[in-house]
Amino acid sequence: MSKHVVRFVPENISVTVDKGTTVLRAASLAGIEIKSTCGGKGSCGRCAIKVVDGQVRYEKGNRSKKLKDQGLDLACQTFVEGDVVVEVPRDSRLDKHQVLLENENRGKVLAEKELDLLQEYEFKPLCRKVQLTLEPPTLTENASDLTRLQAELRQTTQCKELIVGLPVLQKLAQTLRQEDWKVTATLACMNGITEIINVEPGHIANSGYGLAVDIGTTTVVVYVVDLATGETVDKRGTYNKQAKYGDDVISRMIYAGEENGLQELQDAVIATINELTDQLLEKNGIKPADVMVAVTAGNTTMAHLLLGLPPKYIRLEPYIPTATELPPVKARELGIHINPEAWVLSFPAVASYVGGDIVAGVLATQMARSEEMTLFIDIGTNGEIVLGNKEFLISCACSAGPAFEGGGITFGMRAMTGAIERINIDPNTFDVQLKTIGDSKPIGICGSGLIDCLAKLHRVGLIDRTGQFFRDRETPRLRKTDDGWEFVLAWADESDIDQDIVITEADIKNLLRSKGAVFAGIQSLLKSMQMDVNMIEKIIIAGGFGNYLNVDDAVQIGLLPDVERDKYEFLGNTSVKGARMALLSQDAFRESIELGHKMTYLELSAGTTFMDEFVSATFIPHTDLTLFPSVKDEVEQGKAG
Amino acid sequence: MSKHVVRFVPENISVTVDKGTTVLRAASLAGIEIKSTCGGKGSCGRCAIKVVDGQVRYEKGNRSKKLKDQGLDLACQTFVEGDVVVEVPRDSRLDKHQVLLENENRGKVLAEKELDLLQEYEFKPLCRKVQLTLEPPTLTENASDLTRLQAELRQTTQCKELIVGLPVLQKLAQTLRQEDWKVTATLACMNGITEIINVEPGHIANSGYGLAVDIGTTTVVVYVVDLATGETVDKRGTYNKQAKYGDDVISRMIYAGEENGLQELQDAVIATINELTDQLLEKNGIKPADVMVAVTAGNTTMAHLLLGLPPKYIRLEPYIPTATELPPVKARELGIHINPEAWVLSFPAVASYVGGDIVAGVLATQMARSEEMTLFIDIGTNGEIVLGNKEFLISCACSAGPAFEGGGITFGMRAMTGAIERINIDPNTFDVQLKTIGDSKPIGICGSGLIDCLAKLHRVGLIDRTGQFFRDRETPRLRKTDDGWEFVLAWADESDIDQDIVITEADIKNLLRSKGAVFAGIQSLLKSMQMDVNMIEKIIIAGGFGNYLNVDDAVQIGLLPDVERDKYEFLGNTSVKGARMALLSQDAFRESIELGHKMTYLELSAGTTFMDEFVSATFIPHTDLTLFPSVKDEVEQGKAG
Repeated sequence: MSKHVVRFVPENISVTVDKGTTVLRAASLAGIEIKSTCGGKGSCGRCAIKVVDGQVRYEKGNRSKKLKDQGLDLACQTFVEGDVVVEVPRDSRLDKHQVLLENENRGKVLAEKELDLLQEYEFKPLCRKVQLTLEPPTLTENASDLTRLQAELRQTTQCKELIVGLPVLQKLAQTLRQEDWKVTATLACMNGITEIINVEPGHIANSGYGLAVDIGTTTVVVYVVDLATGETVDKRGTYNKQAKYGDDVISRMIYAGEENGLQELQDAVIATINELTDQLLEKNGIKPADVMVAVTAGNTTMAHLLLGLPPKYIRLEPYIPTATELPPVKARELGIHINPEAWVLSFPAVASYVGGDIVAGVLATQMARSEEMTLFIDIGTNGEIVLGNKEFLISCACSAGPAFEGGGITFGMRAMTGAIERINIDPNTFDVQLKTIGDSKPIGICGSGLIDCLAKLHRVGLIDRTGQFFRDRETPRLRKTDDGWEFVLAWADESDIDQDIVITEADIKNLLRSKGAVFAGIQSLLKSMQMDVNMIEKIIIAGGFGNYLNVDDAVQIGLLPDVERDKYEFLGNTSVKGARMALLSQDAFRESIELGHKMTYLELSAGTTFMDEFVSATFIPHTDLTLFPSVKDEVEQGKAG
Repeated sequence: MSKHVVRFVPENISVTVDKGTTVLRAASLAGIEIKSTCGGKGSCGRCAIKVVDGQVRYEKGNRSKKLKDQGLDLACQTFVEGDVVVEVPRDSRLDKHQVLLENENRGKVLAEKELDLLQEYEFKPLCRKVQLTLEPPTLTENASDLTRLQAELRQTTQCKELIVGLPVLQKLAQTLRQEDWKVTATLACMNGITEIINVEPGHIANSGYGLAVDIGTTTVVVYVVDLATGETVDKRGTYNKQAKYGDDVISRMIYAGEENGLQELQDAVIATINELTDQLLEKNGIKPADVMVAVTAGNTTMAHLLLGLPPKYIRLEPYIPTATELPPVKARELGIHINPEAWVLSFPAVASYVGGDIVAGVLATQMARSEEMTLFIDIGTNGEIVLGNKEFLISCACSAGPAFEGGGITFGMRAMTGAIERINIDPNTFDVQLKTIGDSKPIGICGSGLIDCLAKLHRVGLIDRTGQFFRDRETPRLRKTDDGWEFVLAWADESDIDQDIVITEADIKNLLRSKGAVFAGIQSLLKSMQMDVNMIEKIIIAGGFGNYLNVDDAVQIGLLPDVERDKYEFLGNTSVKGARMALLSQDAFRESIELGHKMTYLELSAGTTFMDEFVSATFIPHTDLTLFPSVKDEVEQGKAG
């Protein structure tokens, strides 16, 4: 097979590939990360590139007129036929911005919450260091090194079963004698078994660190936690490097089925964790060998990909994961850049679409210990919902789609600097006022902005309850293009991307389907328990999405239930918070395993309840306005408008 | 540093080495295995080579006049200074003969014994296969693959705790669906925990195999055992490839301390196990993946080297091993050529010089379950002795040295074809009649031959009770050389090596020290329990040595206690037999762990009892003739002779 050189500009990075390779694949090989929401299926239209020079072959793909006009092609549908030069526009590149970890405004509240959470559990980290001074052996007191160490540890710690692995044993003799029988042993305690995972010569002051890791489909967040104090030393987030293989879990699962795909996905997420870990440890002067344990929480697909488990049957009906309770593995088995003997633990999942991140969230909310009937909602690429209290916990997953994270929306983007988060529309002139994250010029619109936009478009009478534009409104912002109707939120000269930022009718329909799925999920859970909305005593919103969310907007479009606003609570990234709790408390870790068993799963695709609810919920706010008493009047007025 | 080429003849194998490398090391790199009893210290004189051409530098070493006369040098004391050509004589090469597994004469008895042994324990192998047919999942019955498998296994096997490793999980989804939810799971049960170590699609008929492995300093023996029937499918033994780094454990331990030495020793023993395993599996048409568990038994040093644990402090006072109870490791961690997920278990040791081979031996003898006061003796390179019954077990190790295996004896050799095993000397003419193994021409003398030789030399009045030749005996066989007095056992023209085969006075002194050490060990154990020889109800002789041993000879020279001959029993390789029992019975395996704790260890170098006993025991048979009533008269007569 003939080989050709693909050169990417402006970087001027060249790679040699087989004839027939896609430009998307070539870019990946060159280390240039291109957006690919659909995973290279030619359907999302995100991977636009310009072939500057050379011979290529095209396949059909979802290339919009706009792309054609700009002379752009889809990287996934462009096949190399000779040496080529390719330009990758900025819009097609995966963003490198740092992920916002918390809403600054809510930071203080959250920090206090975090401390509160921990007080509920005994502070007993999964790992700890113990300083020991052993009696040296003699001819008559000649127990083996290990027996001597175990005996002393049993006395000091009251641990009975004390196991040890080969790497520790291999250096034990030397270590014990190096500082005259003074040593520091690191113990990992899980499920009643204690393992000596490290023995260091002398009495070591530092008490070791742990990682709490949230593995999201979109972003990965790592906390470095001091195991002596429980303090979070530092934290950092970034985009999951798997993003280049598709934006959502479905695309990732499909990619995992391709040759070497699973390995590439596993490598990508581990590289992401390692990048964050390397940065955090270096910045804080912590040696990788001093990080003795990691707890990860992610959705079921992410957890499978981390461990190299094929997610194939998660995707296919009846949606079965390989495992919900995942075995602990050694850091060296995964190649995580911490102590090779450290255990890497995964939060258990409930089912294919209610994963360890949700179990960690439930742990963090402590709803399983509370009398209060709680509704826990995590809206990310998918929407997961848990209803219950100490008596029962029932969960479901609704394919909300990536709309609230900006996926499938023309100018959708994640919540980062330049994203429109608030919108005001003058009811008379239809003029628009915007508020962006970081108060910079707008470059797109994030989830909370989209919800606000929908609410305002409806409130001022620009769209009807099905999300369709009233064609007759007189404003230059409302216009018809080849792709259908759209409303201009920001003109090109106001934006930072020299284009009009618009929301299209297709975008709005997407949003309505997403919000309808979430609300229908809530209704399905309630109905399965013969409950109604008014019986909910607390609603906890998790995820980055909640950081910028305006509850009134969300209620107004029918995304969230219309209950007293003070029942709402925002907990931010509950996944990493739960992981941190498990890290710091063996009891919390044990409880997480129990939660995995206790939480039941309602499969929405079984039966007709969900579909019925979904259809009703795709209206603004809903076909049944009695469910939304606080907005009923306004809606009926808007409908008339 | 300059490099030079060393070419070995007659093979014509060349290696390039740094200037200053020893010829011994160069030979090792070239894959030519040279005897090196002392491990390259220049003291044993075994590694004789001839420098045919090129420049070398010599260091001092124990080079006998004989070697000098033959123009031979010691490979370990000859340093490469330029390109050289080296000839390696046949005598200096490690033998490639197959190790004799059992004495053919005793074969039948042993086979029966083997069956008996097993009947004492419930037949419950450490590993077994279970055929399962699972209910396929549905939308409403959607437990994970692992949960489904575990539930079915719990029901079928009553195992509660069922763990699973990553490699099994990674292929589980595919495996379950390949034959429509029919699978065969392999379970490994140890210490109350059951691990699913393999899942195969469909219902597999074969029930899996296990390896029982005896790792001796000199030889390694592997049994392949059918885990369904308990039958030993086949067995094979060969020399431990570590032999090129020294004949005894001390030399090996010293070599382990050299750069990369530990790794080389570990590699060598694993290569030995793999060679045997490969041959056995191929011959019997067994796939490596079907071998699901291995149990090894070896002395403490061998067990350390297998796992890559540095044996340094086993050698140095107060003689402390890294561990006596060794963790199970996966076959893949060691690189053993069986199923990578198979557990490789090591028999626990009692102390640095009473290892897992002795614990396995005690298990095989079942003395720990018996009322009978039993003395268990394993004479190999070292001598280990255990005294006791179901009430107590006390053990010791006496450095018998390698004399009984032919080490340190001019024409000493192991028990193989051509070895003199029986000797008769005419009391009048001093003419000699020989019996060799395989009835071929003699090439040396093995342990049992040496004992017989000593007994006969004494009986016919050629040596006194201290082992010194009566210089005045008139026979051409008794002669004085530059190296001292010697007696010719076979003339050059009768031998297969074109040399006179002799036993020297130095050889005899070596043998007396060896036998004295063993007997002094026995006496020390008895004295520590305030017992005497007559309280022993049974004496079990283990090891290949016992295969050819004549008890009368051994008693006559004072190696073994003078008790009724029918108290003696020979069990052959009790180490591998114990390993096999543990393989086939979880109870026996558990008992072996308990034995490791139950057996106490008497350190002979603490206190003066052993040294006093040793001095008395270096006489023929002993200074205290009341200990040897059956030979007392003859000895007193011989003394007069």
